[in-house]
Amino acid sequence: MRMPLNPNSTQPLYRQIHGYLRQSILSQSLPPNTRLPATRQLAKDLGVSRITVENAYADLVADGLASTQVGSGTFVLPPYTINNPKASHEPWPLWQHEFACVPLELCEQVSSSCHPRQISFAEGSADPSLFPIDEFRRTMASVMRQAPHASLDYGEPRGFLGLRTNIAHILSSQGIMIPPTNVLITVGSQQAITLVIQVLLKPGDVILVESPTYGKALELFSAFHLKVVSIPIDKDGMKTELLEGILQAYHPKLIYTIPNFQNPSGASLSGRRRRELVSLASRYNVPILEDDFVGDLRYDGCAQPALKSLDTSGGVIYVGTFSKMLMPGLRIGFVVAEGPIYGALVKRKYVQDLATPNLVQHALDAYVSIGRYQTHLRRSCRVYRKRRDAMAQAIGRYLPQVDVDIPQGGLFMWLRLPQELTATELLPLAWKEGIDFALGENYCADGSGSNYLRLNFAALSVEEIEEGIRRLGVTLAKLQKLS
Amino acid sequence: MRMPLNPNSTQPLYRQIHGYLRQSILSQSLPPNTRLPATRQLAKDLGVSRITVENAYADLVADGLASTQVGSGTFVLPPYTINNPKASHEPWPLWQHEFACVPLELCEQVSSSCHPRQISFAEGSADPSLFPIDEFRRTMASVMRQAPHASLDYGEPRGFLGLRTNIAHILSSQGIMIPPTNVLITVGSQQAITLVIQVLLKPGDVILVESPTYGKALELFSAFHLKVVSIPIDKDGMKTELLEGILQAYHPKLIYTIPNFQNPSGASLSGRRRRELVSLASRYNVPILEDDFVGDLRYDGCAQPALKSLDTSGGVIYVGTFSKMLMPGLRIGFVVAEGPIYGALVKRKYVQDLATPNLVQHALDAYVSIGRYQTHLRRSCRVYRKRRDAMAQAIGRYLPQVDVDIPQGGLFMWLRLPQELTATELLPLAWKEGIDFALGENYCADGSGSNYLRLNFAALSVEEIEEGIRRLGVTLAKLQKLS
Repeated sequence: MRMPLNPNSTQPLYRQIHGYLRQSILSQSLPPNTRLPATRQLAKDLGVSRITVENAYADLVADGLASTQVGSGTFVLPPYTINNPKASHEPWPLWQHEFACVPLELCEQVSSSCHPRQISFAEGSADPSLFPIDEFRRTMASVMRQAPHASLDYGEPRGFLGLRTNIAHILSSQGIMIPPTNVLITVGSQQAITLVIQVLLKPGDVILVESPTYGKALELFSAFHLKVVSIPIDKDGMKTELLEGILQAYHPKLIYTIPNFQNPSGASLSGRRRRELVSLASRYNVPILEDDFVGDLRYDGCAQPALKSLDTSGGVIYVGTFSKMLMPGLRIGFVVAEGPIYGALVKRKYVQDLATPNLVQHALDAYVSIGRYQTHLRRSCRVYRKRRDAMAQAIGRYLPQVDVDIPQGGLFMWLRLPQELTATELLPLAWKEGIDFALGENYCADGSGSNYLRLNFAALSVEEIEEGIRRLGVTLAKLQKLS
Repeated sequence: MRMPLNPNSTQPLYRQIHGYLRQSILSQSLPPNTRLPATRQLAKDLGVSRITVENAYADLVADGLASTQVGSGTFVLPPYTINNPKASHEPWPLWQHEFACVPLELCEQVSSSCHPRQISFAEGSADPSLFPIDEFRRTMASVMRQAPHASLDYGEPRGFLGLRTNIAHILSSQGIMIPPTNVLITVGSQQAITLVIQVLLKPGDVILVESPTYGKALELFSAFHLKVVSIPIDKDGMKTELLEGILQAYHPKLIYTIPNFQNPSGASLSGRRRRELVSLASRYNVPILEDDFVGDLRYDGCAQPALKSLDTSGGVIYVGTFSKMLMPGLRIGFVVAEGPIYGALVKRKYVQDLATPNLVQHALDAYVSIGRYQTHLRRSCRVYRKRRDAMAQAIGRYLPQVDVDIPQGGLFMWLRLPQELTATELLPLAWKEGIDFALGENYCADGSGSNYLRLNFAALSVEEIEEGIRRLGVTLAKLQKLS
């Protein structure tokens, strides 16, 4: 066997031999099970000492590329999968079989229409185009210049103190008086909800939710094998007059509620019901998880006190987010908790992902602290109020047969179709008209909701809303004719 | 009762009355249980119609601020906690009691020394000051200009395709040939490990780990109530000759291993043992979780094949990160899995936090794709090799009584003290000298490790290493004299 060796190289000869053989094995020019030349022979061929060749072979063996069998020599081992990506017919290991039924369909159903102008009412967020991206870019650049390493280190497990302080300030304007040491910053409010579930509930435990409620919370609860019990809502939110009976019958370990501009119904819990809810939960020793995902987006009516602000004992855990109001991709949410559970939440977050990305926290902190958040909020409310009004009017004009309560804030309207019709029947027809919306059944754990649909009014222009609702009216009329 | 009303305001009179009363109640200038004036009386006082006052009162009731008792009038309800932050003596709700013992001490013990020049060998990461922050800032700015909304939207649940493609390219240079559709981007590798645990194991299941191993993985396993079984390592990594017996005795559901420059020992698994591990795990139907946290940071010796590249059947799950090599605060890690489990991991990630922050993914993708990652890697390896050599020499000079295997890469050296001494005794003395290090016992689930310490050589300058080890030598001599 011959190979190019360079005696003047800084690389020792044995490394050169090893490198050449390694390359030959990896490229399979030395196929598996080939017997390598005897060390004495190769040393002679190459004009090097025998120990040099032995060292090279020893390294090949250490690499897992060759194997020495005493008395019979050194052999090339079967190749890595480098050149053998898994053949598709090879069976998966047994332990993988239980996952075979997990579908990889993650997005909600999307329109397959080829309509030239599609209008989607199915979004879950506000309108990101309102976000002053240039200003945020400048903020980001300035943060990276002024505190480069602070913003790119791990940072505190519970989140950047500056941002926690800002959040505490924002919350105090909502009557929630807590210090930054009770705030934990999370990867969006979804992670905040996850942590609360992980800390408070075990598989099989009962969680009480509104019906309808946030669909991705229902998916989360199902992933944790919780038993979901529903309490109905009306235009004033959760029907708390039913609460005591349900608490007695089902013994839930947690009450999950969205008191402001609820997702998907848009309903807001009345002041009286807020007090009832907090008081009953306290009496029955059940913690409340208050998800205030768009509490800031109020267009009229009076702000109701947060449940957290009505609670004097540490019985309410409050979750908020900047994703809906600012940019979803920031993925900055937070949870506010008092009492021993706060430490348990921080600890859980820490062992699971150490910390929320630090750079975005610093940028958001700088952005929020100079009052730009409040300005953005006021501007957003002006825009979204007009869009809500436009949708309400368009529904009156084009969809007189549906039932809807106009929300005082938030992002969504919740439409009930005439009794005999379902949203599932309506959707494919709507797609043909280039219209998409969210199916009501995705928001109900109890199998109800089939004749409801959720429309987002905040993410579209007034003109798109008008045109979209007009087309939806045409579609519904068609469906009614078919039925 | 008098209040300032403006009949020319666009705000209706009843809203003005409501607003004034609301403010008075919140500020407690109308204390709890005050009876509000009769509607007829107040209407007369203010010169408005009675229905106007009734509307204002009704809104106060809806706010939860007042309560109307038929026949006896309307009363102010007890105040919110707005002005009453929780008194510290008030008891927490019963359900909080189980958390009372969760300590909020999250950081590893830190030096309390007042030494004028502190040197910490306790860090877990590489040196962030090597990171070309200015370049990254420019990349970030350019990404936000070119794709502002793409980078600030939710993005794909499994992570930005561009970055996943880049990761697939980087991995192919390590012999791991997988398409981007088998990569899931996570919030650091810690989240990747968490997801694998959540999907594969239940409380009480056995997980097999090396002893010693990554301390924060042990904390995670303990938070999930797993039973940890340890397998010892030597300088060639996990002693696979013991593996079969352990698999038969304990039936672990997962093998967690760090084959390259292990944390904390610095050991690398030999090629032969890699093959043995993959083959035994496959035979016993046990998945392997390969944590390759600094596999790229090799200073000498030959690269060993990744376990993932030796596995042809989807039995190895591979976890990597950019946190150690680039900037910890980026919090970008990833998991590579084939077979049905990939979908289960994506789904789990999605229900728990929807997606990893998108902006940082786009910036990292732009940074990596134009070859800057490779350049940064080469430069880092040059620097860290010198630091490793400096530490090895300093240990030879100042700590001849300790036992250490010099690692071929990574961040850490793992020092064994003379038999009769413990790192716990050494640490307070070291603090006095301004030196900090990580205690060996934090890396061992089986209670061993007390006479080991972990030193990070990558995060300090050559000069700091020399000085730090010198002081550690002085400290150790003192401890030996005391013993």
